Amino acid sequence: MNKAWSSLRVNEDRFHRRFLELSTIGVVNKTGVHRLALSTEHLRARQWFLDEAQASGLETHIDGAGNHSAVLACRKEKAPTLLLGSHLDTVPHGGRFDGALGVLAALEVLHVIKEQNLQLSTHLEAIDFTDEEGTYLGCLGSQALSGTLSATQLSHSVGALADFTAGLLRAGMTPESILAARRDPETLAGYLELHIEQGPRLQNTDCQIGIVTGIVGLERYRITFVGRADHAGTVSMQDRQDAVQGAAAFILAGRRIVMRDFPDCVVNTGMLALEPGAMNVVTERARVGLEFRCAQAHDKATLETTLLAQAEVIAQECELRLEIEKVDSIEAVQMSQTVQHALTTSTERLGLRYHSMPSGAGHDAQVMSRVCQAGMIFVPSIGGLSHSPKESTNWDDCVNGANVLLQTVLGGF
Amino acid sequence: MNKAWSSLRVNEDRFHRRFLELSTIGVVNKTGVHRLALSTEHLRARQWFLDEAQASGLETHIDGAGNHSAVLACRKEKAPTLLLGSHLDTVPHGGRFDGALGVLAALEVLHVIKEQNLQLSTHLEAIDFTDEEGTYLGCLGSQALSGTLSATQLSHSVGALADFTAGLLRAGMTPESILAARRDPETLAGYLELHIEQGPRLQNTDCQIGIVTGIVGLERYRITFVGRADHAGTVSMQDRQDAVQGAAAFILAGRRIVMRDFPDCVVNTGMLALEPGAMNVVTERARVGLEFRCAQAHDKATLETTLLAQAEVIAQECELRLEIEKVDSIEAVQMSQTVQHALTTSTERLGLRYHSMPSGAGHDAQVMSRVCQAGMIFVPSIGGLSHSPKESTNWDDCVNGANVLLQTVLGGF
Repeated sequence: MNKAWSSLRVNEDRFHRRFLELSTIGVVNKTGVHRLALSTEHLRARQWFLDEAQASGLETHIDGAGNHSAVLACRKEKAPTLLLGSHLDTVPHGGRFDGALGVLAALEVLHVIKEQNLQLSTHLEAIDFTDEEGTYLGCLGSQALSGTLSATQLSHSVGALADFTAGLLRAGMTPESILAARRDPETLAGYLELHIEQGPRLQNTDCQIGIVTGIVGLERYRITFVGRADHAGTVSMQDRQDAVQGAAAFILAGRRIVMRDFPDCVVNTGMLALEPGAMNVVTERARVGLEFRCAQAHDKATLETTLLAQAEVIAQECELRLEIEKVDSIEAVQMSQTVQHALTTSTERLGLRYHSMPSGAGHDAQVMSRVCQAGMIFVPSIGGLSHSPKESTNWDDCVNGANVLLQTVLGGF
Repeated sequence: MNKAWSSLRVNEDRFHRRFLELSTIGVVNKTGVHRLALSTEHLRARQWFLDEAQASGLETHIDGAGNHSAVLACRKEKAPTLLLGSHLDTVPHGGRFDGALGVLAALEVLHVIKEQNLQLSTHLEAIDFTDEEGTYLGCLGSQALSGTLSATQLSHSVGALADFTAGLLRAGMTPESILAARRDPETLAGYLELHIEQGPRLQNTDCQIGIVTGIVGLERYRITFVGRADHAGTVSMQDRQDAVQGAAAFILAGRRIVMRDFPDCVVNTGMLALEPGAMNVVTERARVGLEFRCAQAHDKATLETTLLAQAEVIAQECELRLEIEKVDSIEAVQMSQTVQHALTTSTERLGLRYHSMPSGAGHDAQVMSRVCQAGMIFVPSIGGLSHSPKESTNWDDCVNGANVLLQTVLGGF
């Protein structure tokens, strides 16, 4: 790489101005953001992104899966496209950095290269993927683009199907348009994503950059315990078939099993819906949202069997029926060795302290790695906090991450 | 009582026709009814009740607490009023009999007496009390009428306060109008309520009528465990403060404590809300709706202390904060001995098999007993089922119950 290119840096002020502007869209609790996929706030953020891209002289594009892109074409029309991206949707009451940082850094990288009128050997595309957080279907946008999404998966939304359908309508999408968003892998030069770590390792080891080696796999289930609705005053405790008792026992057992036998895995039960859901009625149906993640495929398979068997045992003990529905499944993957090498080179050239590490969180890079060379850059999360309004990263670290992204794009791989 | 009066019976066909008509308002799952207090369906049912009353030649009245009444005045303008009633609201996805039966029987009794042009020594009023089931505030209507409701209670709705406010607006009520609905106890001759048992005792003992001796007291709380929202993939199990773990432990402990140490009490945790409530976020807030009922006041006080102490222990063990809010409290009461005697006399005269028994469920009669002579008639619930679309009572038993009500009104007490 020539000297002029290697000294190029992102425009810190512009990058920061955009970060602050974007953070106001769907703001909650001052430092939080509530931008559920396909919500009005999310769609406003996506429009803001297109407006910024157009004002920067970039082309824009929306595909059938709702993925929003800023595009900087190179001179060779048939060159492949290097995707740089992340997502603008958030979890409920999430933070300002998760996803948004990667999209803004990608836009900034294209903006700098456009300003400098540099000629690269690939087209560049800054992409905002749809529903990474799984309000309806985790990594919907990247799964559609990579062609790894099935019609069956589309009919099993995490949330209520009616809400999903309403969201699609709001965004001008259909199940058919989503499946048609697939791109030929031959047209892709690779995928790079800058993201906050969402854990405490970089901070604990005083590193500025994390170079991601791989991403854990995960499974998501809806486990419903079914009992009988009864009057909560007139039916004796002995005679009840109380579905919430089964759900509560399962929630405790899941944590116990993972902490005792699966030290490298994590489990979460962050959704729970009771029916009919009244103070004075014994619960007929208790639906638990179950998610577990493991870096190793065999751990995941064993944990899956163990948790489902435990649910069966609890249901029998509580005289409840059980309904089990798998809603998501993502295999653990390794990031491209070539890309990891290119990221390491850029990071060292920038003189930054770094650490190679797996990611405990799922990302679009995990999906994209199935069809092209993919890599991820992490920057430190203060206190390891994420998916919370308190999520934060020092702005210097954000700029460092964006510069690693820029330098890796310029250096190629 | 003269012979003509003692041979009077309710009009079975008319009573049944009205039951079937009312059952269609808010119908769910064919035999169920979903008529939450102040919902559109509930307000439709109330209007239907007024229309039927007017068509029967009765006067109608709505008070500031939304209580709907059909009135049959006697000749003495200053005579006290004998109230006959129950409620037209239901629990979510409840049954057709709970509450509705008592209101229809009261209307039928007034209709028969009006048709026969009988002159009684009291005014008669068939009353449909507001929100007996506690969608917002249990026994709101009878508490308002009896003057036992406070402004503080009104500001602590069981459901979301915004929903309550919207419901009041829909029904044309305000907190001020509710409190102004109080009546002078001197104007009340008593209160009689026909209701389904909602438990299996009458069926198990082959009885047709239950004469209620008293009603258990209850307490309702919102217990919120507060932890920290974290990413469910990147934060280790050890580092989490997962609020749903505290809630689950408390749900199991509540049942265990009652079954072991409080054999005459019952506990229910039929509401549970998680925040933020996503598959991939550790739960920050888990709010449990807690209800427990005891026939003896000292049991209730001890159980209350025990459960709240248990919640504190669990919160400490799970490193969670605890927020405790009492939302309802009703003391156990005894029904009037005089009224029990009058009910027994009527039941025996009708040649029905009966049983004197306490009620495990709360009722408006419990509230009314604080300000006037109150009594309740139970009819058998098939299988003891209630608060469910499967709730049912043989129609002959319903007619028997209505005839006991009629004969007791005619006999006086």
